[in-house]
Formats: sequence, structure tokens, C-alpha cells
Amino acid sequence: MAKKEEKLGINVKKADDFSEWYNEAVIKSELAEHSVIKGFMVIRPRGYAIWENIQNYFDKQIKKLGVKNAYFPLLIPDYFFKKEAEHAKGFAPELAWISEKEEGIRYAVRPTSETIMYDSYGKWIRSWRDLPLRINQWCNILRWEVKQTKLFLRTREFLWQEGHCVYATENECERETLIYLKEYKKLCEELLAIPVLEGKKTEKEKFAGAKTTYSLEALMPDGKALQMGTSHNLGQNFAKAFNIKYLGKDEKEYLPWQNSWGFSTRLIGAIVMVHSDDKGLVLPPKVAPTQIVIVPIYKSDNKNKIIKKASEIKNKLKTYSVKLDDRDGYTPGWKFNEWELKGVPLRIEIGPKDIVKNQVVLVRRDDNNKEFVKITQLDKKIKSVLDDMQKSLFDKAKKFLNSNIVEAKDWNDFVKQIKNRKLVKAFFCGNVECEDCIKDKTGGATSRLIPLEQPGKIGKCVHCNKEGKFLVYFGKAY
Amino acid sequence: MAKKEEKLGINVKKADDFSEWYNEAVIKSELAEHSVIKGFMVIRPRGYAIWENIQNYFDKQIKKLGVKNAYFPLLIPDYFFKKEAEHAKGFAPELAWISEKEEGIRYAVRPTSETIMYDSYGKWIRSWRDLPLRINQWCNILRWEVKQTKLFLRTREFLWQEGHCVYATENECERETLIYLKEYKKLCEELLAIPVLEGKKTEKEKFAGAKTTYSLEALMPDGKALQMGTSHNLGQNFAKAFNIKYLGKDEKEYLPWQNSWGFSTRLIGAIVMVHSDDKGLVLPPKVAPTQIVIVPIYKSDNKNKIIKKASEIKNKLKTYSVKLDDRDGYTPGWKFNEWELKGVPLRIEIGPKDIVKNQVVLVRRDDNNKEFVKITQLDKKIKSVLDDMQKSLFDKAKKFLNSNIVEAKDWNDFVKQIKNRKLVKAFFCGNVECEDCIKDKTGGATSRLIPLEQPGKIGKCVHCNKEGKFLVYFGKAY
Repeated sequence: MAKKEEKLGINVKKADDFSEWYNEAVIKSELAEHSVIKGFMVIRPRGYAIWENIQNYFDKQIKKLGVKNAYFPLLIPDYFFKKEAEHAKGFAPELAWISEKEEGIRYAVRPTSETIMYDSYGKWIRSWRDLPLRINQWCNILRWEVKQTKLFLRTREFLWQEGHCVYATENECERETLIYLKEYKKLCEELLAIPVLEGKKTEKEKFAGAKTTYSLEALMPDGKALQMGTSHNLGQNFAKAFNIKYLGKDEKEYLPWQNSWGFSTRLIGAIVMVHSDDKGLVLPPKVAPTQIVIVPIYKSDNKNKIIKKASEIKNKLKTYSVKLDDRDGYTPGWKFNEWELKGVPLRIEIGPKDIVKNQVVLVRRDDNNKEFVKITQLDKKIKSVLDDMQKSLFDKAKKFLNSNIVEAKDWNDFVKQIKNRKLVKAFFCGNVECEDCIKDKTGGATSRLIPLEQPGKIGKCVHCNKEGKFLVYFGKAY
Repeated sequence: MAKKEEKLGINVKKADDFSEWYNEAVIKSELAEHSVIKGFMVIRPRGYAIWENIQNYFDKQIKKLGVKNAYFPLLIPDYFFKKEAEHAKGFAPELAWISEKEEGIRYAVRPTSETIMYDSYGKWIRSWRDLPLRINQWCNILRWEVKQTKLFLRTREFLWQEGHCVYATENECERETLIYLKEYKKLCEELLAIPVLEGKKTEKEKFAGAKTTYSLEALMPDGKALQMGTSHNLGQNFAKAFNIKYLGKDEKEYLPWQNSWGFSTRLIGAIVMVHSDDKGLVLPPKVAPTQIVIVPIYKSDNKNKIIKKASEIKNKLKTYSVKLDDRDGYTPGWKFNEWELKGVPLRIEIGPKDIVKNQVVLVRRDDNNKEFVKITQLDKKIKSVLDDMQKSLFDKAKKFLNSNIVEAKDWNDFVKQIKNRKLVKAFFCGNVECEDCIKDKTGGATSRLIPLEQPGKIGKCVHCNKEGKFLVYFGKAY
């Protein structure tokens, strides 16, 4: 067993080598691992259970908004990509094609489903009565990236949801595009305890084929931004390309307006990066698959009595997801380490002395705070500690985010702040070539967001000094 | 609107052209449709909602049994297939390969996930403490069939669950292989109201790579059997091929035992075939996405009052999934037809006279039975009608199944009964070549099942007259 204990913990500190720390945190806590297939991951049960919690929460939210789930084919014929030129160009480098099965038709594995879905929409939508149409799909996606794999954040296959809605009017479309963005924000902040910035993407960074891309960005501890979800107002581009039309109440034909919106399993990576520590995962209580672990502390002569009490306690905590770790052959210390590594928010220890005093020891994962709690008070106490932990994780991340947003005084300051791993606010001309230059000169900083609320007066572009168009957040990103 | 009404119903009778009736029933009720990609289907929201109900039910059941969900890569490298020879041979004709991305390695889209999962299992399993390992995956599957597409029943892509467990002992493995089969039976009979026969597959029909395949078969109204789910005892074949070993309590190395088990979206096709009728879908209440539709019957002068009452009734029926169809511009008759086509189990009609009498009209989808029910009695009445409908659909299907099982007296009788579209019980030698002959001579009859309970004395093989090995159900199958 000594051998196994050596391998249990993370060997690198988060502050020393963030990238390697992340890798070990994900693998050793058994969330996911690299597959034998280059660029692909295996999502293990502990990782998948987090995804299920995210799904359960979000699926309920969108159903309340009138969205229905469906399933469209995995494969997309090549001629579909050609219908929307920008879209085709954007995804071309990342497509994986199926070896030709029938002469003259090539199929790619879906990198996103706009085209295959909108072909059906063109058949389904006839009149204003069929609108709005709101459909979502939970599925797997393939994008043959050539960059190095990072578990959850950059893999050739990932799981996601993609919502695709059609509306009669531009107003309705724009309004709901922002409603889904708000839902993503709620998911990130209330469930995952990760504060996000919201805004629009620049011309260079927007989705291939969209009119406007709205996005949420979170800041990781290494100063890199992570895109948490996007909601695209597609305008009428795809409706034109896929011949989607509807007959209005006036019996005239119109082109509808569309949006699409998605988030993926990369959210699990964000949770790990933002909250976890050198001992392993720290999971926000609302998304943790196991919220409480009970570790009984016994010897052979009092084992039965203590396990019995521990089971009683477990049975009382029915509203939580509780694990009783009654495995023989592992010391309590080993168990503490294992559940800390795996990110269980609360640990209950119960030993012979506790039984006498009718109490347990309650240990909180994020701050390691330990307290004795009377069993009669346990339920109430657990609720308040879990609520406090959820809030405290968010507050800590929010403080980090706020303290890492700076405003660039000039170009030199901009370059310096990017080097300092800050999210830098600066005026920008909006020009794609100018943005390419900024990226080159800073070793990779890109525009992250155009905040929705803009200052009254826009200054000159921080880089080219020409007329500024808007204030933008710049930063390096995953 | 007249135009639209023409298209609403099914144009073929179930008794006249079963195959075309099925196709129309699925498409016109908006469960699914053919995709532009040959052999692929689009599962529309009404079809997907049935799948979600099946998933919700079954996912809870297996979690109670200790199974956890995970996700493994979509792609399988060619060299994995070669590790288990029978398995490779069985799936070779149906594989779709990705165009070569890296020299020398070819990837197929998964036709099932044994190989990719067991490669990971080989790394995860070290000692007896790691067993049993019980993992399930909900995912999409690709099998490039060349036969003609049939929505839900035969498509190149389908959705399914695949459970894959590993055990220390042969006994435990066999016992749980049968437990999952029982769970499938419960799902089919209690949720889908479809009676099934259970048994083993013959050598010829068993899963490629399995030691024993257990299967459930249901009988469709055209006399063809449909395989509803299979549970395979894989023995130690894959453990050997993928080098899965565990250290026993005695510190010695052992090969574990494995099973795998799955059912797919074809279950939705079975529901349609077994229960539905010339007016459209008939869905068992437990699996129907919408259980009750309320159709208010109003004119412009009493509209508000009646809609208000209908809404009140809807709000009272919170434990059911209820749709209030208050669309203007459609007649009540049109609405009745639409919801009958779409298979809503119960319809509540409410008009001005009903309001005066504080009653509604309750119409049951399967037998069209109509009754007046006092609003105060409605909740109780609905429960009993839905329970009765669920039971009645099962009983009807059970009666059909029982009356279509016959015993073959001799080979001539066997051929005649197969022609009569019966499930034929006969003694069989178990020989693969003999089974091939039976298939050829009967125009396609195959062994469906070896019932688990066998008679004490086994007669001669119905076809070759050699020593019989067991009693077998033969029939034509989807």
C-alpha cells in the first residue's frame, strides 16, 4: 500500500508549473485521461458525473424557455459546407472525412451542426405558425486540431450542447440570443462558481458564418482567458443558404432570423483550473458528484458500532450525495488524502470519542476548516457550510478576476500588461489586420470581448492610433 | 387549411401495407425522418422525448445497481479490432473509416466500444479492490449497413447505451449478465408495454466475441421478431486480448470476467409497430412525452372564459405532462386528429355546456372510449384510466404474442408455420451450417432464442434430424 500512497497526490505545485499541475489534477483525481488515440480523451465516471450535473441543470433551464431536444446525423456531406462560404472556410482545416463509401459524395464528421440541422429546418418551416422553432442537441463533436492536447480544454473530440433557433423577426432573434448568453452566465456563476465577463466578439474572432457572436470569458489562474460559452446571432445568412422561408400572416414569404449557442465539456476544465489546489480538486458543492464523504475512524473492537453510527448519519443526509467510506485496509489518513484529491467538498469524521459526545468532525475542503458539530445540528450546519463554500469559491475567483483587469495607458503599457498576464482593456479600431499585428507583437494576445456597455467617448486605437471603434478586453487565451 | 388537413393523416392501413403504414406513422407523427444522408435519420423532438423518457427510467435503474456513466472516444484504431479475432471479423463489413490523418494508423467510427473501453480497463484495474467495475455509456454508433433503411429499426447511425462490466469471478459475471437482461425486460414490459421472450442466442447469432449472448425478442404485428436488447457474457476473451488482469487477495494474478449489454433507439420503432393504429401513434402513458392534451371548444364570445377554465384544469394536473392546445385558426376536429396522430394517450375536451355542468369529456386514445367526468373527480379518474390503458396495451400485445407462438410437428409443418408468420418452437441441433440451410429454405427464418427453461427431453433436430441440442424459437426478424 505504501507504493500506492506515493502515487496518490499531485507532484507539482499549482504556482510552480500550472500546466503540469492541471494535467495531474485531472488525471489523478480520475476525471479524465488521454486516450491511445492522439488528441482524444476518455471522460472517466468522476468527470462524466460533473457533466451530468451541468446537463441536468441546463437542460431544465432551456426546457423552461421552450427549447426541445433532438438528434441530427453525425455526418455532414461536403456540399452542405459549400452553401455558406464563411462557415465552410472557417471549419475546413479541422474536418475529419469518412473514406469514400459512395461515389462522388464525401462526408465529414460534424464539427458543429448548423448545416445538417438547417437543411431539415428548410423542410419543417412553412408558416409563421411554425416559429419560433427552438431545438437543442447534446452530442459529440470532432475538430481535428493540430495544437497539443489539453484534457477538457483542447481535444479533437468533445461533448457539448448546441442550440439552434429560428425566429420571425430580427428583434426576437437578438433578444433570445442574449437570453441564452444570460443562461450561460447563470450556469457559470451560480453552479460552477466561476465569474465571467460578457460581450461581443470582434470581426476576427466571431463564429464562421455569424452576424454577431456573443461570448463569456473567464480568467484562469495563469492569466489566460477561457471562452466558456458563445451565443451567435446568425442573422439571415444560413436562412438564405439553406432556403428557409416562412409565410407571414400577410401570406407573403419572408426569410427568418436564426441563432445558435453552445458550451462544451471544457467547462469541467475551467472548474479544475479556477478552484483546485495543490492537494487536488476543489469542486463547488452544487456541481460536485459526491458532496459529503463520511470517514469512520475505528479499530477492530469498535468497528461495528462506529460503522453503524456512520450509516445512520448517512441515511439522515438524504438530500445530499453522500459516500460512506467503510473500506478496510486503508488508514483514515489515506482516505482523507484520496477524497481531498477527488474534491469532495465536505468530510465527516466520526470516531469512538465523537460517538460518546454525540458529535462529528466536519472538515471543509476549500479552507480545511475543521469543527466539531453535534449530530442533532448536522443537517442545518451542512447546509450553511456548503452554501458558504459555494459563495466563497465564487468570491475568491471574482476578486482574482477584478484584480487582473487593467487599462492600458498606451501601446508600451499594453505590451507590458499582457506580459504581466493581465486582461487588458484598450480602445481598438476593429480592423482585422490590426488585430493580427497585435497578436504577433505580443506573442499571442487576442481580443477577448467587446463589453456590451461601452464608454461614451471612444479613444484612438491602442495599436494603430487610428479612430477607435470600441473598448475591448485583450489577453492570451486557451 | 384544407390543404394541410389532407396531408395530416396516414394514407395506408396497418393491415394493408404494414411497412408503408409504419413509415408514415413515424414521419407524419414527427418522431423522425430520413436525412439527406443515405441511411441516416433525424430524430425529431417528439421522437427524442420518448428516448429521454427511456433514458431517465433506465439510467436510474442502473445507477441503483452501481453502474456509472462515462464517455470513451468515437474512434477506434484498426489495430484494436485485430486483438479479438471474432469481434474483428464480425464488425469488419460495417465499419466506416476516417480518411488517413496520420501515417500508418487507421481509425474507424465506433460500431460498439468493447475494444476502446477495455484498453482503458487494462490500465485501471490492478487488484480485487477495483472490482466489480461497472460502466455505461450513452452514445451514437455507426454501422454501415447496406440493407434498406427503416427509421429507428435499421439506420447506419443510431443512439444506444452500452454497459461494460468486469468481475472477479465467473459466477458473479454470469449472475449480473442476467440481471441486466431482467432490467431490459422490465423496461420493455413495464414502461413500453411490450411483452418479450428471453433466452440465449445460438452459436450463429451470438455477438462477435461473446461466450454467451442473452437476448430479448418481441413480436411485431407483421409476424417478424425484433431484438429488443442483448446482454453478453464475454467470458475472458477480451480480458486476454486487452491484457486485463487483477491481483487477488492471495496476491496472485487472475484474468477477470466481463459482460456487455445494450439497447438502442430501435425500441422507439417497436413502440410504434406494436401499439399504433390507422389513426397514428398510440403511446403507452408511461413513455408518452405528452400524456394529456386539453382541447378547449369555444367561439369568440366565450373564448376567454373557456380558456381560463382549461388553464385551471391544466394547472391542477401537475403530476402529468399536459398540453393545452389553445391555438386559434384550427378547428377542434383538426386538433383531435393531430393529437391522435401524435399519440397523446388522453384528450380532455371542454366546451360551454361542460363548464355549466362542471365537467369535461375524457377521450382515451387506444379504444376511443369517451366519458363525461366531473372536474372534482378528474385527477383520480385520469390516474385510473392511464393505468388501465398502460395495462390494456400490454395485455393486447401479450395476447397477440401468445397466439402466434406454435410448435412445429415436423419440417413440413415448420416451413408452413414460418410462411404463416408465426414464431415457431422446434428442436434444433445447434449446428451453424444446419441453421444456414434453414434460413435458405424458409426465405429468411433464423433462430431467435433458446429459451432459458428447456424441456426435460430434447427431440431430434427439426431440419437435419440429427441429435437435438435444445428447443429454439425460429422466425423471421428485423
